[in-house]
Amino acid sequence: MHWTKIVGLVVGAAALLGLGIILGHFAIPKAADPPASSTSDSQDLDLEILDTVMKQLDASRIRENLRELSKEPHVASSPRDEDLVQLLLDRWRDKDTGLDSAQTYEYEVLLSFPSPEKRNSVEVVGPNGTILHSFQPGEKNLTGEQARPDVVQPYAAYAPSGTPQGLLIYANQGSEEDFNRLQAQGIKLEGTIALTRYGGVGRGAKAINAAKHGVIGVLVYTDPGDINDGKSLPNETFPNSWGLPPSGVERGSYDEYFGDPLTPYFPAHPSSFRLDQNNTPGFPPIPAQPIGFEDAKDLLCNLNGTSAPQSWQGGLGCDYKLGPGFQPAGSFPENSQVKVNVYNSLVLRNSSNVLGIIHGAVEPDRYVIYGNHRDSWVHGAVDPSSGTSVLLEISRVLGTLLKKGTWRPRRSIILASWGAEEFGLIGSTEFTEEFLNKLQARTVAYINVDISVFANDTLRAQGTPPVQSVIFSATKEIKAPGPSGLSIYDNWIRYTNRSSPVYSWIPSMGTLGAGSDYAPFIHFLGISSMDLAYTYDRSKTSARIYPTYHTAFDTFDYVEKFLDPDFTSHQAVARTAGSVLLRLSDSFFLPLNVSDYSETLRGFLQAAQQGLGALLQQHRISLEPLVTAVDKFEAAAAGLLRRISALQNSPDPLQVRMVNDQLMFLERAFLNPRAFPEERYYSHVLWAPRTGSIATFPGLANACSKAQDTNSGSEAWAEVKRQLSIVVMALEGAAATLTPVADL
Amino acid sequence: MHWTKIVGLVVGAAALLGLGIILGHFAIPKAADPPASSTSDSQDLDLEILDTVMKQLDASRIRENLRELSKEPHVASSPRDEDLVQLLLDRWRDKDTGLDSAQTYEYEVLLSFPSPEKRNSVEVVGPNGTILHSFQPGEKNLTGEQARPDVVQPYAAYAPSGTPQGLLIYANQGSEEDFNRLQAQGIKLEGTIALTRYGGVGRGAKAINAAKHGVIGVLVYTDPGDINDGKSLPNETFPNSWGLPPSGVERGSYDEYFGDPLTPYFPAHPSSFRLDQNNTPGFPPIPAQPIGFEDAKDLLCNLNGTSAPQSWQGGLGCDYKLGPGFQPAGSFPENSQVKVNVYNSLVLRNSSNVLGIIHGAVEPDRYVIYGNHRDSWVHGAVDPSSGTSVLLEISRVLGTLLKKGTWRPRRSIILASWGAEEFGLIGSTEFTEEFLNKLQARTVAYINVDISVFANDTLRAQGTPPVQSVIFSATKEIKAPGPSGLSIYDNWIRYTNRSSPVYSWIPSMGTLGAGSDYAPFIHFLGISSMDLAYTYDRSKTSARIYPTYHTAFDTFDYVEKFLDPDFTSHQAVARTAGSVLLRLSDSFFLPLNVSDYSETLRGFLQAAQQGLGALLQQHRISLEPLVTAVDKFEAAAAGLLRRISALQNSPDPLQVRMVNDQLMFLERAFLNPRAFPEERYYSHVLWAPRTGSIATFPGLANACSKAQDTNSGSEAWAEVKRQLSIVVMALEGAAATLTPVADL
Repeated sequence: MHWTKIVGLVVGAAALLGLGIILGHFAIPKAADPPASSTSDSQDLDLEILDTVMKQLDASRIRENLRELSKEPHVASSPRDEDLVQLLLDRWRDKDTGLDSAQTYEYEVLLSFPSPEKRNSVEVVGPNGTILHSFQPGEKNLTGEQARPDVVQPYAAYAPSGTPQGLLIYANQGSEEDFNRLQAQGIKLEGTIALTRYGGVGRGAKAINAAKHGVIGVLVYTDPGDINDGKSLPNETFPNSWGLPPSGVERGSYDEYFGDPLTPYFPAHPSSFRLDQNNTPGFPPIPAQPIGFEDAKDLLCNLNGTSAPQSWQGGLGCDYKLGPGFQPAGSFPENSQVKVNVYNSLVLRNSSNVLGIIHGAVEPDRYVIYGNHRDSWVHGAVDPSSGTSVLLEISRVLGTLLKKGTWRPRRSIILASWGAEEFGLIGSTEFTEEFLNKLQARTVAYINVDISVFANDTLRAQGTPPVQSVIFSATKEIKAPGPSGLSIYDNWIRYTNRSSPVYSWIPSMGTLGAGSDYAPFIHFLGISSMDLAYTYDRSKTSARIYPTYHTAFDTFDYVEKFLDPDFTSHQAVARTAGSVLLRLSDSFFLPLNVSDYSETLRGFLQAAQQGLGALLQQHRISLEPLVTAVDKFEAAAAGLLRRISALQNSPDPLQVRMVNDQLMFLERAFLNPRAFPEERYYSHVLWAPRTGSIATFPGLANACSKAQDTNSGSEAWAEVKRQLSIVVMALEGAAATLTPVADL
Repeated sequence: MHWTKIVGLVVGAAALLGLGIILGHFAIPKAADPPASSTSDSQDLDLEILDTVMKQLDASRIRENLRELSKEPHVASSPRDEDLVQLLLDRWRDKDTGLDSAQTYEYEVLLSFPSPEKRNSVEVVGPNGTILHSFQPGEKNLTGEQARPDVVQPYAAYAPSGTPQGLLIYANQGSEEDFNRLQAQGIKLEGTIALTRYGGVGRGAKAINAAKHGVIGVLVYTDPGDINDGKSLPNETFPNSWGLPPSGVERGSYDEYFGDPLTPYFPAHPSSFRLDQNNTPGFPPIPAQPIGFEDAKDLLCNLNGTSAPQSWQGGLGCDYKLGPGFQPAGSFPENSQVKVNVYNSLVLRNSSNVLGIIHGAVEPDRYVIYGNHRDSWVHGAVDPSSGTSVLLEISRVLGTLLKKGTWRPRRSIILASWGAEEFGLIGSTEFTEEFLNKLQARTVAYINVDISVFANDTLRAQGTPPVQSVIFSATKEIKAPGPSGLSIYDNWIRYTNRSSPVYSWIPSMGTLGAGSDYAPFIHFLGISSMDLAYTYDRSKTSARIYPTYHTAFDTFDYVEKFLDPDFTSHQAVARTAGSVLLRLSDSFFLPLNVSDYSETLRGFLQAAQQGLGALLQQHRISLEPLVTAVDKFEAAAAGLLRRISALQNSPDPLQVRMVNDQLMFLERAFLNPRAFPEERYYSHVLWAPRTGSIATFPGLANACSKAQDTNSGSEAWAEVKRQLSIVVMALEGAAATLTPVADL
């Protein structure tokens, strides 16, 4: 053979061998590296599955769910509430559309009900003791659904029984400032009955504030100016519009705390330690009763005394006066008094949560929890059944894929139907108490959809910063209801928006208070949480909430006629919640953007510097440690983002788990169980209740407002310093959670 | 070309290509397998590496470490303490034997020192005010090392300054019972000086108990009966034996709490919130001073009054009387008083921890922490340098393997040299406060080796149940020092053993109090912890602790002559700690046996039933919920053990991580930050301090002992019920942590 041929053959052979080596090394995946994890360990969000879920979420099924759920009143622990427990179990155990398993978790909790025999009432008592006027608060039977025996009559849950009688005064919203203002005007409050309107402060706070001034009974009404954009006539209200009828009364819990009142920090099992029922902290100290505005008008429009300030006036069509007592020329004699007859009683009742689980395929020890409460005040079509009807539709679609074998999420999904929320988030709180440790160790996020549709106009999202990005991602891909053709995101940004230093113009997400079952998850457990709903165009209504809230008019017809006739807003919420749920449970990399906390913290810091800086400087307290801590957090979050980004190229499952755990545990780092010893369950140092108007760290703001009129050496200023250290420590701890794990 | 040639070439080419493919696929490891995990994800304990480490741990190097570490006194924050910080840093940053990184973490902490100008003293003052006798507590210069200016003179750290003067009484160990007994005997305690001996209760407690009875000053001495098996003559004690010389005085912290006294729950950074230094809870309310037994003898053997009870007698060679005052025929006039002059002061000082890290190869976000304190009272050869010399030898051996590229652990290893332990575990406590969240989320176990060798006879291990198995595994493979040829395990079981219902006859592991830096890890963070040492044959000595403890006689010579001349006991501890460390950091499956908690819990339950059952029944409190909870825990632990066993066959890294996390988080589930609001840092409901003799749940036992003489309706009985619920909740939560992760 010619040498050139030989060279050619050798070169060719070498090239072939080389090509083979290259092919073998790079082109053929290693089959099953025995001890290493299976390829399913890198299971990621499947966009086709997501698309299928989005398509299958069906408005008409949500409508039928709602019809069934709201067919009868189902106040917590009632027979119908128990029926719905069974309905949930049946759905979640269905062999074709159910979950892996479903179970009830029962607690023995303290509820409060009006007497079934003796109805609560309000009387006007003449100077000689005769009853001049009397009414029993409660809805007129306008649609045939209000007269059922299982409609619980309006009352203030946990308000004590009693029949106080005294001169009536008007106390606006019953805030501390309101009572102080009355006091400052020289109005004698001792021994009076205070008429207040809903709004401003919590229900129970009205009675607590009143009692501090010697008031002996409280009435609370819903002003048409606050709920109906001023409309108050029968023909302007339900069933003729979405407005609250004159006889509608908002029920509600008047307990200052949430969770079972007798078992704080313990699950309310029968054997658990209980506080003394006769000496329970947080209950109203004096009888209280809610009433409708038609009854409030009879009282308020007849009051004597000077006119109430402009901001205290409302929509009853008369000049609101302050009292005390009735005006000479009015419906009642001048010295008539008002008597409030309250016959509530406390009862231990069983209340159940229903929990359904889909086991995660890869990380079963990571949970995404999605829940809503089940109990209502009356029929509860909007609150909570609009949310539960969405929950059931999502579970049907996911359950179907699961049972067919088409899909199983990467992480475990826990669906929850909470009991006794209306009495103070009781079911969800007991759940967090019972499973405290494992929930904190394993829960990625909590999604709450309580009232899913307040109105038809736009998404409303509340949550902590890490969930913003996943809500944005989800809503950019879903069409908004209505003819606009916009995505939910693009529609949302038209209604609620803000300028962000990071993202420029974005939809504005709200913060989480304690309005629904997310409260124990975020405040007690430090789990990143969100609440999703469709809501109003605020340029069209100033209603405090949807008008029939907690009344016997919150019915299926109300929803179908006035809120969401085609159920497309319900569907939009189902798609949003469903997409967020899938993204959280299925994405290989957790879609929580912790660096969005940097923006929040910087905003809090700037608000503290601007709003409190001068005051603190006067007392020689420096915000420098806080500045350093925010800088550290920002740098740590940005660093983690970069490492996550680098990891995308060669994502080893244990390495991804590692960064995911940093994302998951960040929210926990903001907890300090010693931060607010008087605020039961609140331990998240960024989202605890804040008084005052400066949007900053709540502990610092509250302590400053208490200290501002004291000397530098006072205990109040020591508390300011303590609160500052608490925030600094939390931020430094949060930053430390995000730095590379093998650095200390 | 002939067709055969062509065929040959094609076949050859195909073969070459094929060979190349095969070589490429199998012979060359994939650099970074993109999505699946690399084979290293299942990296497990390498027995050859373990064997190498065991062999390389060198007794003579430990000796040289000890010589260097104990060469000079190095009380916390002294120049020599700072030198040793640098020594640690240099060792851990060494390019051939160091770790991945090492760093100091400095805190500004409140220490207490005697005055450098005016020495603390004790005087006997005659009735006319003349000073009849006076001494300054402190060691005689027996070996040339006791007279150095950097020997801190004996004092009671954190005891206030003052010069109280009064009649002397003898109060045994200064316990509450001791003072009550004196009171019951009609001895007037008001205005007296109490002479007490070390032992029984904590140092600070003696002064606190004394002050409650009006005592104005406290002396504390070491009785030769308690420390020297009765020997008290110079020729019977160091440097002639291991015994405490007559002039030796035990120094110590008299603070009731641990951690920096001014910054509980905050890391002691310069900007952190601090309590008022003049009003710090936990400090002795009256001056206190420790003295040697030669001085105590002058006082005690001259006391007047009735003879002390038999159990209060000691080894000073006279009949101990109770006082008050001196006997007529003794060395001092009858009405002479004792004056205690204390000139201590509180100072803010910087104290550093040194932390060294070896990054984990597979799970860098899981930490095994191994630490000891660095500061001593004087030379501190035994306490703490016998431990630090072992720590340094382990770090040398591991560092060498690391730097050579021979080994990198699966999980991260953190080595720690804590500052200011002698003042109350300050460095370690501040560390746990600073990194609270990430330590709780990531730490697998904490290993403490403080005093590594008390004596030469047997291993002593203290820890929580999950670490028992790994200590057993390690010690079965290591030869005990001495000629026996037994393993450390087989030697240990001869000295300290118990009958276990699960394992029959095993070495007995002790429980963890708050005697060293493990305290914040177990009690505050709920991290499974252990403390390892070599110690006495208890049949040979009843010494309360090694005799020169916290004196100027705890020197290198003392160790070399009397404790461990060939350093083989040090080596044995190094091997034990090293093996435990490697097993915890390198084993694929975490070697923590949580089902060993079942035995503990059942024991606690039985003790409660037997010791408290009748009393509880009288007050209609049932232990049934506790029985159920223990049953649940037992079942859950056994179930997890079975699942782990099944998983061994096909161990997917994420599945193993899942069960490992269950093992790691179990200890956390026993924490309840609301369980003991008055016990700073103590939140582990099983290991908090327990009064009384019933070996059961401490909160329950303590509450029962407080309640037993009150009526069923008392607050004390409510507290018993609350404590019972706390335990039940903890056990149920612990069981829930162990059940299959996708069950709720």
